[in-house]
Amino acid sequence: MDIQYPLELAGTLVFAISGALAVRDREHDLFGAGFTGFITAIGGGSLRDILLGSYPLVWIGDVNVLYAILLGILLAFIFPTALLKLRKTMFLFDTLGIGFFTVLGVEKALSLGVRPEIAAIMGMFSAVMGGVIRDTLTNEIPILFRKEVYASACLAGAILYLILNYFGLERDYNMLISISVVISIRLIAVKYKLSLPRLD
Amino acid sequence: MDIQYPLELAGTLVFAISGALAVRDREHDLFGAGFTGFITAIGGGSLRDILLGSYPLVWIGDVNVLYAILLGILLAFIFPTALLKLRKTMFLFDTLGIGFFTVLGVEKALSLGVRPEIAAIMGMFSAVMGGVIRDTLTNEIPILFRKEVYASACLAGAILYLILNYFGLERDYNMLISISVVISIRLIAVKYKLSLPRLD
Amino acid sequence: MDIQYPLELAGTLVFAISGALAVRDREHDLFGAGFTGFITAIGGGSLRDILLGSYPLVWIGDVNVLYAILLGILLAFIFPTALLKLRKTMFLFDTLGIGFFTVLGVEKALSLGVRPEIAAIMGMFSAVMGGVIRDTLTNEIPILFRKEVYASACLAGAILYLILNYFGLERDYNMLISISVVISIRLIAVKYKLSLPRLD
Repeated sequence: MDIQYPLELAGTLVFAISGALAVRDREHDLFGAGFTGFITAIGGGSLRDILLGSYPLVWIGDVNVLYAILLGILLAFIFPTALLKLRKTMFLFDTLGIGFFTVLGVEKALSLGVRPEIAAIMGMFSAVMGGVIRDTLTNEIPILFRKEVYASACLAGAILYLILNYFGLERDYNMLISISVVISIRLIAVKYKLSLPRLD
Repeated sequence: MDIQYPLELAGTLVFAISGALAVRDREHDLFGAGFTGFITAIGGGSLRDILLGSYPLVWIGDVNVLYAILLGILLAFIFPTALLKLRKTMFLFDTLGIGFFTVLGVEKALSLGVRPEIAAIMGMFSAVMGGVIRDTLTNEIPILFRKEVYASACLAGAILYLILNYFGLERDYNMLISISVVISIRLIAVKYKLSLPRLD
Repeated sequence: MDIQYPLELAGTLVFAISGALAVRDREHDLFGAGFTGFITAIGGGSLRDILLGSYPLVWIGDVNVLYAILLGILLAFIFPTALLKLRKTMFLFDTLGIGFFTVLGVEKALSLGVRPEIAAIMGMFSAVMGGVIRDTLTNEIPILFRKEVYASACLAGAILYLILNYFGLERDYNMLISISVVISIRLIAVKYKLSLPRLD
């Protein structure tokens, strides 16, 4: 699947942007914004890999991931106003990102030989823990306590992927369906609340 | 010691309940409560094993631990009022739990070949760090800054276990004595303050 | 370089003192102060080694590091007022400490075979993440969001070390220059702000 790797880098970049802008909103300095963008982008995947004992961590073993993060931070520094105006676009990218990282996290955990129950948790952790660490560092109530549909949509998508995988569905279709379900749950939930999407 | 394994699972279950109810108190949603219960139950042991480089983590390698956690969360969801009324019972279970996990943490660290000083710290970390992570995530002052006797009782019990172990006391007696000391210190301290016990 | 090891222990001791006193300021109990001193001293190096998968962690493998931490905590307990009066001296030691740990962190990462970009990040993490974890535990805004020149001085020194290393400068000179640059940046920045130095 040639599309997977560029999507992974794009998702990482979007996470870095959202982390950097989350701090920028509250008038921290540039360094703090960059640091937060970095932690947001690496947090979920790093925690997953540390819990699974899988080394090297993705961003340490693959320099392209590091550069995607740095590019995201740079974009947040240069175009903060434009990016903040693109909130809806960013929200869609972020939603796409958590769907994608959920499934990738599940697959990585399975490939390391853990049980499906553990893989489902690792999929959710991959997607949401970067944001949780970001919110903890910046003394915010973590995102998943404020938006039920955030992490639970990921968990639902992870479980669906595992069920479809168990019944032998081909991987590409499974990814497409499971990611779509994560995205759909979140979009529907945000709409039902009749509130505007918020990046953090 | 056939009693050890069921006790370990029971302690994990109690930690999951206390974590889930801690968040429920402040009206977060169900998912947030379950997530917090989960983190509380795995936090201390996971941190100990990550610091020691001991893989797989207990809850990843043993699915029964995972199910004990899920059962605890489920109980917290179904019987929250009843469990909150059982605060005193829960407090006793929690106190039993930290005594038990302290000694298990010490033993695990020793079995991995670290020095006794390190083992004492790992015993305390096993018992209290789940609660510390829970409090950090929910923006509370961590429990061990509020209740001196919480973590220090664990550290005292851990050091006692190591001393008795050094002098060759048989393991079962040592566990019984050291756990009793952790529990006694905490109960006496809570009583002397003449305040009602609080779960978190 | 015979001076390196004692300096490393002295830096660890100063971190433990600063962590213990940070909590003492806000009237937590002795145990909480000791715990915070401990976490502050081990946090940066432990996170670096966990991210890199390098075991055993320094303080677990070398008991002298543990004793340096305990000595620092003990000093903070016995001489809190004197140490708080020595704020300027402590500030200088802390600044020396972050310069020193930055370069040691870079060297350790390089010795584990990671790319220079990763080594620079690991150098900065070694120096500042103990303080970040301390501030997160005590519900403070982490230090590096309040003082731009703290972590960014470390990152600048780390990058300088890598550049000079690339051009073949001898290690002792490189250490001296890079540490001096970290220290100079921070001292100048503190002076320009015309505010008194604050330990945390």
